[in-house]
Amino acid sequence: MNPINFIPIGIIHTPFLSHEGVPIQGSGGKGIKATIEIYPEFAAGLKDLEGFSHIILLYHMHLVEKYALIVKPFLDDKNRGIFSTRSPVRPNPIGLTTVRLIEIRDNLLIVEDIDMIDQSPLIDIKPCLPMIDNIQELRLGWLTGKVEQFSQKKSDNRFKSYSDSLEE
Amino acid sequence: MNPINFIPIGIIHTPFLSHEGVPIQGSGGKGIKATIEIYPEFAAGLKDLEGFSHIILLYHMHLVEKYALIVKPFLDDKNRGIFSTRSPVRPNPIGLTTVRLIEIRDNLLIVEDIDMIDQSPLIDIKPCLPMIDNIQELRLGWLTGKVEQFSQKKSDNRFKSYSDSLEE
Repeated sequence: MNPINFIPIGIIHTPFLSHEGVPIQGSGGKGIKATIEIYPEFAAGLKDLEGFSHIILLYHMHLVEKYALIVKPFLDDKNRGIFSTRSPVRPNPIGLTTVRLIEIRDNLLIVEDIDMIDQSPLIDIKPCLPMIDNIQELRLGWLTGKVEQFSQKKSDNRFKSYSDSLEE
Repeated sequence: MNPINFIPIGIIHTPFLSHEGVPIQGSGGKGIKATIEIYPEFAAGLKDLEGFSHIILLYHMHLVEKYALIVKPFLDDKNRGIFSTRSPVRPNPIGLTTVRLIEIRDNLLIVEDIDMIDQSPLIDIKPCLPMIDNIQELRLGWLTGKVEQFSQKKSDNRFKSYSDSLEE
């Protein structure tokens, strides 16, 4: 199993400085803005992006220190397999958030509806497309009836504690 | 800019052995099945996943050799910024496909509606959630009126050629 190496293409500036009080997913962070600074050597790749209303950000959840395969997610009091959750303490802590694109100024993107922690390294930007990213008739497993709570809940420091408790 | 290191959590087995003739996005690969082998040390994280109808796969597009910031995507004859496309030749070649989850057998996932090349290393699995991944009223920039073609188009080897043409 060879490691896979990626490079930051930019950095995300947000009002959230730690694990606590962060909205849970973009739908929980409605109206909250972030500035994404694309490193100059990648800025040419932003051409034509301004026409899209929503973009998918992939970023490194850089504060995650250890992973867990079983977690107690924010929306439940039961233990769940990590891949059935959007919890950050994944084997590969890649965050995926769909945000509203407000404006592009040179190599800066202003976006809204965010849940990223400040200084998260950006890995990729993809346009959000219907028929590809929007699926009808979703079955939601353990999240059935809970997913509407995303907009009310805020994160606490449980995944920070996770990291601590996993340290030997 | 420190590199970001990830590890494969599994490997994707599909009928597509090269860049040519691959469906474009999962909506183009409707009904085509793949088997995803999760490495045993991560299999415990699959708990509770079986209740979800659709999952998001993040994987390494391992055949991409070089990136380009400006590309001519499959659905257009104009040059577009890479971040306004879903083309594989990205600075960080992470593929994102939402697939239908058919069955889980121990550490094997059977999925449908795929566009991944055989032997792609799997990086993450996330449940696909409404209000998070499904956005209403998308504006689609240069892809307006073109996105329906995903289901008819197949990839050709243009991004293979890209790699070649970028080699000095």
